[in-house]
Amino acid sequence: MSEITAAEALLRTATAAGADVCFANPGTSEMHLVAALDRVEGMRAVLATFEGVCTGAADGFGRMAGRPALTLLHHGPGFANGIANLHNAWRARSPVVNLVGDHPDRHLPFDAPLTSDIVSLASPASDWVRRPGAAKELAPGMAEALATAGEQPGRVATLIVASDLSAEPVAGPAAPRTPAPTPEVDAARVDAVAEALRDGGSAVILLGALGMTEPALHAAARVAAASGARLVAETFPGRLERGGDLPVVERLPYFPEHVLQSLESARHLVLAGAAEPVAFFAYPGLPSRLVPDGCTGHVLAGPREDAAGALEALADALGAPAEPPLPSVAPPGRPSGALDPPSLGAALAAVQPEGAIVMEEAATSGGPWFPLAAGAPRHTYLGLTGGAIGQGLAVATGAALACPDRPVIAFQADGGGLYTVQSLWTQAREGLDVTNVICSNRSYRILQFELARAGVAEPGPKAASLTDLSHPDIDWVSLARGFGVPGERVDQADALCGALERALAEPGPHLIEAVL
Amino acid sequence: MSEITAAEALLRTATAAGADVCFANPGTSEMHLVAALDRVEGMRAVLATFEGVCTGAADGFGRMAGRPALTLLHHGPGFANGIANLHNAWRARSPVVNLVGDHPDRHLPFDAPLTSDIVSLASPASDWVRRPGAAKELAPGMAEALATAGEQPGRVATLIVASDLSAEPVAGPAAPRTPAPTPEVDAARVDAVAEALRDGGSAVILLGALGMTEPALHAAARVAAASGARLVAETFPGRLERGGDLPVVERLPYFPEHVLQSLESARHLVLAGAAEPVAFFAYPGLPSRLVPDGCTGHVLAGPREDAAGALEALADALGAPAEPPLPSVAPPGRPSGALDPPSLGAALAAVQPEGAIVMEEAATSGGPWFPLAAGAPRHTYLGLTGGAIGQGLAVATGAALACPDRPVIAFQADGGGLYTVQSLWTQAREGLDVTNVICSNRSYRILQFELARAGVAEPGPKAASLTDLSHPDIDWVSLARGFGVPGERVDQADALCGALERALAEPGPHLIEAVL
Repeated sequence: MSEITAAEALLRTATAAGADVCFANPGTSEMHLVAALDRVEGMRAVLATFEGVCTGAADGFGRMAGRPALTLLHHGPGFANGIANLHNAWRARSPVVNLVGDHPDRHLPFDAPLTSDIVSLASPASDWVRRPGAAKELAPGMAEALATAGEQPGRVATLIVASDLSAEPVAGPAAPRTPAPTPEVDAARVDAVAEALRDGGSAVILLGALGMTEPALHAAARVAAASGARLVAETFPGRLERGGDLPVVERLPYFPEHVLQSLESARHLVLAGAAEPVAFFAYPGLPSRLVPDGCTGHVLAGPREDAAGALEALADALGAPAEPPLPSVAPPGRPSGALDPPSLGAALAAVQPEGAIVMEEAATSGGPWFPLAAGAPRHTYLGLTGGAIGQGLAVATGAALACPDRPVIAFQADGGGLYTVQSLWTQAREGLDVTNVICSNRSYRILQFELARAGVAEPGPKAASLTDLSHPDIDWVSLARGFGVPGERVDQADALCGALERALAEPGPHLIEAVL
Repeated sequence: MSEITAAEALLRTATAAGADVCFANPGTSEMHLVAALDRVEGMRAVLATFEGVCTGAADGFGRMAGRPALTLLHHGPGFANGIANLHNAWRARSPVVNLVGDHPDRHLPFDAPLTSDIVSLASPASDWVRRPGAAKELAPGMAEALATAGEQPGRVATLIVASDLSAEPVAGPAAPRTPAPTPEVDAARVDAVAEALRDGGSAVILLGALGMTEPALHAAARVAAASGARLVAETFPGRLERGGDLPVVERLPYFPEHVLQSLESARHLVLAGAAEPVAFFAYPGLPSRLVPDGCTGHVLAGPREDAAGALEALADALGAPAEPPLPSVAPPGRPSGALDPPSLGAALAAVQPEGAIVMEEAATSGGPWFPLAAGAPRHTYLGLTGGAIGQGLAVATGAALACPDRPVIAFQADGGGLYTVQSLWTQAREGLDVTNVICSNRSYRILQFELARAGVAEPGPKAASLTDLSHPDIDWVSLARGFGVPGERVDQADALCGALERALAEPGPHLIEAVL
């Protein structure tokens, strides 16, 4: 093989391993990688005008495609702009490989303006960080990054690429490496859980990670049929299949006192891919660990274990029926009247089409939709996994890239939507079928609740101003137009139904500002 | 003194030390600090809808006010959104104190979704990071943070506040601490430089940090008058006073070959607050250190030393005149014709009013303005110090808060402007007199140059798409409207002059999209 640049070898290694999309916001140090993109067929380059869009889109792509997307980012500060959504991706266990350009070794001691400690920045939200020291190590580094990211569930791998190395000639790409297999759960653990469930006490199966796939849900429904256990998903699932003829799964509440209430009657809490429930935030007088006294926790499968296989084995051990009963949930009706969280949720649940992917970061406006949509056609739910608000529009962007034949709905709170509002431009450029529904309550409503929880019954003017998004109101339709996305504003439930139907019927992205 | 919460004690410590603005994007863990803001007079709370606006605004405030502003940010991911502009602030040696909320110690082991390693994230762009372990340490921590940040030049200090501590009662605020004084330069060093300058060879005085204040410039002009030395500012000054009757100072070029060319004839390079010039990026065949062979470097004052005092002592040692000759630069004329970088720069230079603060992040569109504006009335120049694009609109926002009586102009490239476009909303809410001039060339033009420098004469479609901001064009006037800022679009130089005059005459923020 004739020599190619290390940049080209790295990208050829990626395509050979099945990676085919790169969400990029490059700079000078990444120019050899940018140039190599044109020499490597099968790697799509998608520009975002802010790095949080890149990492969020890679997260959405990874959740839906089940394989890593690449990001291409510029030095420590450019990478840093992507950290918040990378944190969400890491918490979602999404497969993501970041390529971060850096100065050559010889240049680092001179402390040029962009010099920063990229390893320190990358480590908190990466499972794997490497900075190869030679050109010939770039392609093998990519192979290892992809194998690491490509485990099931996925991981975040960050490969730091010194700019001089990517221009050097190397012999060729590296061979793809096989990701480590997902550990299976041994029979003894399954039998122990089966014995606990047979004792007749009330049980909850808490589903997370690989316990939320379609096969896992089918097995979980068999377990529920045999044991009477409730099926509950973790509060912020990375990806949950639901609707249609899929089993109905509750979602664990958000506030710790509500979690404890929800689990109050449970004698057994069986973790199937989920971690033990913990409080999102610590509050005085409330515990961090949210397993009530008198409830015994059982780890059927941890978040990195084969929860689907374990649930199937558990169902068999319990002698469960092969075909559990189908759910019977009334299809949601079309609401009317002024928009509020219940009517907004009802409108979305009533109109969302078969196969929709719903990225929900609707915060206080989103609650009512979840139970209503259990009666909607089959759809995929994507949640805000890491608590770093501002992923919704970006994750929806990546999900639409991964699944061009499925309608994507970004069900988005207005406050969170502003963090990566630049996603709209990438949606427009790529012509993605994303319907962005902005829940415009013109406040950080959750913080108004949290102020009250912190004992502030009557916020003063400064506290009020810091939780308020009016003065001036954000005009989302103009923001959308600015980024090349058509938009409309509604404040009635039936108008929202109509706007959703129009947006979903037309190709390309749309934005609906739903004023609450 | 009766007991107050640690949050209130912390804020009272801050106001007692002279801090009076907090740029905030808080979340649940910061609610006690938010509530305390209303109990502490003299601390203004300014909401931004993205954290990069907070850190950029704190940078702009610090550069203009000369004292630290606070930021209030939410956990590691919220802080991370502010890192890029904090990197710029750190490189600018701006005084900034970040308050970052975190979980209580008792909650950290449970690895709740927002848990992350804040110290690892904060260290690369902070001079000082602390996470007090007890409530009584919060106010003293703030006193130490402010004393550290308040050195001249400034530093970045990051105080991580566990949410439970801020609610606890403490005895009261901590006493303010005095920042360490700026080290003076000893006579021997001054004499050595004087001797070098007296040898008659061509010399360049490279000005940076405290060498760019008005007294420093006056002293530098005396040195120049006595020695014939050229006065040159570093490529990306944090803050440079210029125009009117101030000495004319060149700026070091950007590309390394141009820097070497600019310094080619110099036998002596005297550093007065500036670091030795280094290449912004490393290029094959070009050195990192940009001091030509045959040119001797002399450190008169390092970036953290009293460069103004050293320049004054140097002028005296050289027997320089007390009043150096006033500059004679022709006032810029009003241009006409289609907009391009020269006519755009000429329009701005011709119209910018006395006392303007010009935050320039105009990239390839900005070059011609700098020399033309030497003939404009007195103004302050703020540069992109750390190379993390996306500071301009945010720094302008903070500068306007610091100097409500001065017109602020954000002279901003379109690509960079998108990173913290949310700044416009804060400008609108606070009614700030910022004229945002967006240089809309609809590309990352600098990267098109860099591709060519990397040997890509004819970019392929992917490389072309990654440096292009059209398809669709960004409609900046709609973006501005979306954030509550009036805007207009111009593509002719005389129309730009008129638009600038209108915007500068009206109170509140404006945006002008200058299509190139």
